[in-house]
Amino acid sequence: MASVRPNVRAMTGYVPGEQPRGDQIIKLNTNESPYPPSPSVFAAIQAHLTGDRLRKYPDPTGRAFREVAARVLGVDPDGIVIGNGSDDILTILTRTFVPDQGLMVSATPSYILYRNLAEIQNARFQLVPFADDWTLPQSWPVPKADLTFLANPNSPSGTRIDSHGIQQLLGQLDSPLVLDEAYVDFAPENGVRFSQSSDHSVIVTRTLSKSYALAGIRFGYAVTRPDIAYEMNKVRDSYNCDVLALAAATAALDDQAYLRDIVGKMIATRERMTQAVRELGFTVTPSQANFIWCRRPPEQPVKPLYEALKAKGILVRYMNYPGSGDGLRMSVGTDTEIDRLLEELRRLV
Amino acid sequence: MASVRPNVRAMTGYVPGEQPRGDQIIKLNTNESPYPPSPSVFAAIQAHLTGDRLRKYPDPTGRAFREVAARVLGVDPDGIVIGNGSDDILTILTRTFVPDQGLMVSATPSYILYRNLAEIQNARFQLVPFADDWTLPQSWPVPKADLTFLANPNSPSGTRIDSHGIQQLLGQLDSPLVLDEAYVDFAPENGVRFSQSSDHSVIVTRTLSKSYALAGIRFGYAVTRPDIAYEMNKVRDSYNCDVLALAAATAALDDQAYLRDIVGKMIATRERMTQAVRELGFTVTPSQANFIWCRRPPEQPVKPLYEALKAKGILVRYMNYPGSGDGLRMSVGTDTEIDRLLEELRRLV
Repeated sequence: MASVRPNVRAMTGYVPGEQPRGDQIIKLNTNESPYPPSPSVFAAIQAHLTGDRLRKYPDPTGRAFREVAARVLGVDPDGIVIGNGSDDILTILTRTFVPDQGLMVSATPSYILYRNLAEIQNARFQLVPFADDWTLPQSWPVPKADLTFLANPNSPSGTRIDSHGIQQLLGQLDSPLVLDEAYVDFAPENGVRFSQSSDHSVIVTRTLSKSYALAGIRFGYAVTRPDIAYEMNKVRDSYNCDVLALAAATAALDDQAYLRDIVGKMIATRERMTQAVRELGFTVTPSQANFIWCRRPPEQPVKPLYEALKAKGILVRYMNYPGSGDGLRMSVGTDTEIDRLLEELRRLV
Repeated sequence: MASVRPNVRAMTGYVPGEQPRGDQIIKLNTNESPYPPSPSVFAAIQAHLTGDRLRKYPDPTGRAFREVAARVLGVDPDGIVIGNGSDDILTILTRTFVPDQGLMVSATPSYILYRNLAEIQNARFQLVPFADDWTLPQSWPVPKADLTFLANPNSPSGTRIDSHGIQQLLGQLDSPLVLDEAYVDFAPENGVRFSQSSDHSVIVTRTLSKSYALAGIRFGYAVTRPDIAYEMNKVRDSYNCDVLALAAATAALDDQAYLRDIVGKMIATRERMTQAVRELGFTVTPSQANFIWCRRPPEQPVKPLYEALKAKGILVRYMNYPGSGDGLRMSVGTDTEIDRLLEELRRLV
């Protein structure tokens, strides 16, 4: 096996959050929606569940989806690229922009996958630390990367760089910027308009795994200018999205009323949860996402809490970032689930 | 947009076969099954079509699928890698084995996508012509490639290198070999046992888009040794297969009786179709796949036939390979569809 590439052989590989089976577990570790997807998603899947649809290839360009998304966002459908989850879009972006030994940059702490994408591409990877208040450095230190990632809202913090901050970053940046908006539906504004400008190359990425409650069907997309989408589509596999996922995603985006309803519920639960966890002595960063980042001083380690909760059937995410310490990232669940979480936490702390 | 990689900018991108909508079209251009998938596929999808399944991430390792596939094939489940279509597996293989400026090799004429995979990876690509009788050269001219592809059965020819020929190739080859077995269920034997040997690195790729009638759900897999699968899984996206596709694929592989039934029907139709098209004056290569490769002498061009059939609502694939000429690749349809095809062809030739 001498022929495996050295960069791949040296990798450990991305370790996704635990995905245990069993309906008894309260799963607050991978930021899934605690609510089901829109009823129209089920109807759309049923309508496509025929022998003729399953035996034939899907529409390789996902036109029906792109037209609905374009209408919802007020952009050109030719600037939308469909993906098998937004991770697929992140891979496509890496392969479109980053050469061998190229440079990829991300703020840190943030989404861990960015490093793996760089390793697979045999690219260099550089981290730029957030300030203590989760803002960006006044002067961005790596303007000439091949690709720069900003998860916005960010994980694990749940914080967001506002439009002024993004504008400032773009003024300093001499490379394409990926605004990873996986969690943006839980925030008061988004960065789509930056992706439409010809002054900079900005690619907004979105997923249906969080606010649209469709982590199981794997669907994400990019919003950018048509000229950038054209290049990304050469790298995209022609049939990366299946017929049922396309139907589900199209129906989900077409039901904005349902989205507003469940997002509203999750935001209300998030605020209550933030307050209650703070009252237990945690430092909780104000979140604009569907999770909260909970820390304690080093003399009160949180890893034993993660383990004790897991033993009680409540799964949260323990995260530890070199240089900036550890914490618990807890997804927003239903009110009942969060009541159970708080009940156990009160016993433990 | 100076930052798009030059290899991507220079590409034209893969052009998939036409995927028109409309049930009136007789679609014989992309080798889909004319029969629906097994009834157990529909039952499995229905069983997973719940809010809880859709809102949560799928099993990242596809264990249930791998266990069924391992039982059917008599191999170790840890040597099976799941893919979002076998094209996803081909991409994973390229990124696992081929460095920047590395060398990828394929016999020709064959699957056109291999060249695109090389272009995206910024690798060199070399073609080795089949002999006139679709066998391999006695001495393989590029033993030290980073990755060598052999579509077996091959498209567009439908021919297959037998075990003796593969053994001979492996004896000459000093690089991993991909045996792309997209069409192998229509042939009398397969190459899985080569993938289990530690003498060579052989990766067999399979798709559910052809014999299993599931092109719409996008599912493929690799069969190889666990040590190779381990490296491929680092490159694979953790959630490349969705919950409904995994359920469908698992049910499809578990129903081998249904597979034998529809494959038997397609082989019978293929033989009848081959005979009838020959009687119309075409040279038809004996096929071990679910399509036939139909050629005529240069003074009787086939492209006008493709166009005339399309005008009548019958879609076949016109293919033209530099250096080896053109022809029509016609998928095996139902008997009724093939009767319509033959009726139109008799009028046209």
